[in-house]
Amino acid sequence: MFVALRGAGPAYMRLFCGLRDAITTGRIEAGTRLPSTRELASDLKLSRNTVMRAYEQLIAEGFASARQGGGTFIDAVHVQSTTPAVTKAKPGPLPLSQSALRMLPAVANNPFMELRGLTPVRHDFMYCIPDPSLFPIQEWRRRLSRAIDRASRRSLSYDDPAGLLQLRDLIAARLIKYRGVRCAPEQIVVVSGAQQALDLICRLVVEPGAPVVVEDPCYPAARAILAAGGAQLVPAHVDGEGFDIASVDASIDATCRLAYVTPSHQFPSGAVLSNRRRKLLVEWAARVGAFVIEDDYDSDYRYVGPPLQALQGMSPEHVIHVGTFSKSLFPSLRLGYVVAPHQLLEPLISAKWIADWGSPAHIQHALAAFIDEGWFARHVKRTTSVYARRRAMLLEAIEREFGRDVTASGGDAGMHLVLWLHRLKPEHVGPLLVSAREHGVGVYSVSSFYERPPERAGLVLGYGTIPEARIAEGIAILARLVRARIKAKAP
Amino acid sequence: MFVALRGAGPAYMRLFCGLRDAITTGRIEAGTRLPSTRELASDLKLSRNTVMRAYEQLIAEGFASARQGGGTFIDAVHVQSTTPAVTKAKPGPLPLSQSALRMLPAVANNPFMELRGLTPVRHDFMYCIPDPSLFPIQEWRRRLSRAIDRASRRSLSYDDPAGLLQLRDLIAARLIKYRGVRCAPEQIVVVSGAQQALDLICRLVVEPGAPVVVEDPCYPAARAILAAGGAQLVPAHVDGEGFDIASVDASIDATCRLAYVTPSHQFPSGAVLSNRRRKLLVEWAARVGAFVIEDDYDSDYRYVGPPLQALQGMSPEHVIHVGTFSKSLFPSLRLGYVVAPHQLLEPLISAKWIADWGSPAHIQHALAAFIDEGWFARHVKRTTSVYARRRAMLLEAIEREFGRDVTASGGDAGMHLVLWLHRLKPEHVGPLLVSAREHGVGVYSVSSFYERPPERAGLVLGYGTIPEARIAEGIAILARLVRARIKAKAP
Repeated sequence: MFVALRGAGPAYMRLFCGLRDAITTGRIEAGTRLPSTRELASDLKLSRNTVMRAYEQLIAEGFASARQGGGTFIDAVHVQSTTPAVTKAKPGPLPLSQSALRMLPAVANNPFMELRGLTPVRHDFMYCIPDPSLFPIQEWRRRLSRAIDRASRRSLSYDDPAGLLQLRDLIAARLIKYRGVRCAPEQIVVVSGAQQALDLICRLVVEPGAPVVVEDPCYPAARAILAAGGAQLVPAHVDGEGFDIASVDASIDATCRLAYVTPSHQFPSGAVLSNRRRKLLVEWAARVGAFVIEDDYDSDYRYVGPPLQALQGMSPEHVIHVGTFSKSLFPSLRLGYVVAPHQLLEPLISAKWIADWGSPAHIQHALAAFIDEGWFARHVKRTTSVYARRRAMLLEAIEREFGRDVTASGGDAGMHLVLWLHRLKPEHVGPLLVSAREHGVGVYSVSSFYERPPERAGLVLGYGTIPEARIAEGIAILARLVRARIKAKAP
Repeated sequence: MFVALRGAGPAYMRLFCGLRDAITTGRIEAGTRLPSTRELASDLKLSRNTVMRAYEQLIAEGFASARQGGGTFIDAVHVQSTTPAVTKAKPGPLPLSQSALRMLPAVANNPFMELRGLTPVRHDFMYCIPDPSLFPIQEWRRRLSRAIDRASRRSLSYDDPAGLLQLRDLIAARLIKYRGVRCAPEQIVVVSGAQQALDLICRLVVEPGAPVVVEDPCYPAARAILAAGGAQLVPAHVDGEGFDIASVDASIDATCRLAYVTPSHQFPSGAVLSNRRRKLLVEWAARVGAFVIEDDYDSDYRYVGPPLQALQGMSPEHVIHVGTFSKSLFPSLRLGYVVAPHQLLEPLISAKWIADWGSPAHIQHALAAFIDEGWFARHVKRTTSVYARRRAMLLEAIEREFGRDVTASGGDAGMHLVLWLHRLKPEHVGPLLVSAREHGVGVYSVSSFYERPPERAGLVLGYGTIPEARIAEGIAILARLVRARIKAKAP
């Protein structure tokens, strides 16, 4: 019996889809006894377990049944009795909205999603992920447990879409004190991570087809969300002073209502937006009547110079300050916040309600306690010193192994830096990444984050998750591979 | 000093906005000493605390400062030094997207949101809220605690947007076994409540301006979400057999791609969609090429007749089955699921990733354990018997107090029924609700859920949260008030 594997997903599912199609198109007739699982597994070079799961699925969905005495039979009668005639034919493709078509490539094209499929390596310089082993998980567990114990029964019910007021108070107090943000606690809206913040803001501000200014290079999730919202992405030049709004053609001013920036630690270049550029940016926003999203994704971590004030403090009614607990606590917590300009506050709360009614209550109670009892501040302090040490070791190793062949930049804050490789060309980076991975070293190309890739070869090196002991070793291997590649390309 | 209260929100915020506007427009000059909090409070008939908070806000936002020796002074220097010239002028209204304008009324017009503002009453026949005191919160706390203990450090990081596979397996197994749903575990997408499910589906399927068939009466959150998505809502007639697709004009067939229904227990009428109507509906969907959302919001609870099969089982590629744990566990958990037709699966996972990257991990692990260890099934069994008892007492009390003056219908499932009042007109219901509340009885008018309000007077009576001991008492008071109102309108 010929069966093609169909669609995506695990093998058993693809086999199930192939069999189902064969049944619904009449290639396998009602009453047919399917081959034994052993037989079909051998025919298709699949595990027997895979075939068994596919058969079970056929049975569960009413396409076949197992008879006493053995054997799985195509069960036309059953299909007909529970399935109205109209759906026996395979439905044609159902139309998706324009918005769906824009959303579809988001997951497929996202570098983070690709990374999930990679085999773990020993020396992984992964970026944007905090070290899970540093998180005081037992303290978090206790706070969450206690929050559930103490929370009123009322808190089990539907709650305020803007979030727990106590948490909003604590977030506002922290932002006012440490980040120079100017806001009332009521302007804070608790959201499910910066991801949701960006999506909601995009829905509120961006008309499909309208230009939105983004950094080039840019955080890929932001680019994906804005593109999914129908934005026409207008990349702005980024250099050592960060994002430059002046590099954007003034012809978009009439229709542009949004810019997305990472002023504290540009992703991925690591540049800090200079005061001059900040002023230009808020002036531009006021002049054209646009909002600026300030994505403050990792500004809790800063190693050089005084703490930076948020852009928001310069123009609270034009800058939408977005923060996340994904870096300072952990990503799968899914909590972040938006400091909404007054004009955006009511629409944002509406949008949050529409999107999911509100973020889960107990986690918000636990986070409030975690902050209020000082655990948050202690954790940030402790991880800052750990990341500072790793950063220093990384810079030392780079200096030792590469000397003047490279420039390490953008490492004043956050948990990654960029290593520019002077003696390689951008086209050498791809093969380098592959061979580094083969040698147990995970590094990432900077060009994948660019709209207009740079003429230099660059690597993003994160130090959030790599243990100290492996940093020097990893960089030594990397340097060896880079040298080999330089030699190989020499005439 | 004249200060107007501005904008929405708490009084202190409105006072702050009034003061801020007076400062930025120059009506209050730099260096001015603000009146004492006592003085201004008395002038404006506000509490002193309100004025103090407004002053604190002015200080926090850099508009004023408190001087030693007392007094709050307008602090122009500070404002100028941190605020660029361009933002000193109050920004004009910034344009919001069409989508934002559609979202804005959602919260304001939502009956659930209005209910949050009501003073609690002794006999509250609130609908759609499960009894929080029945939830085994300690067992939940233990599962969550253990999930955090056992979860790998890896689970702290970004995870699969479709949800925890183990949880999806358990949900699929339950739906296949008890609801006749036909699906593979991979077709389950974990979402943050049915609210998010509806929003994501709407974004994937509905083009702004396109017709979407809804029930009349309809679950208001669904109506709000669809309207926010730009749908042109086409109400379909609901009677004792439930929703009738035949009542919808065929002129929409060419452009309609979605219908929203609650087949197991129509909200709020309580009707169960008949087999005949189910068949018509899936035939319609196949013919016009539309998806049907089956919102299975409270079908865990059924008191009369055999368990109902889901509509999804009749047409798995046209029906999008949506379920929630808000009723069977508790609303602020914010977890639900979608069983996606194959054509919608990849777009849905993309949309979920864009919307919030995925639901929080630990809660998913805990829910998987809660189901796997039988706590979910035990809790549903236990609450079913409690709600069944309350339902019986409610029906008895209605029979005893009202006799033939009313019909109670739609109470075979869920946790509410509708009481049709034969001797009152729809216009009498509003005043009845008010006087009932004054007498400590919370009941809700059925007409607020209708697009085309019915010619009969009807009340929605929930029995999810009211204690047994108060049911008879509450109905007795209600009956007395209804009789008084019948007399009052008699000639």
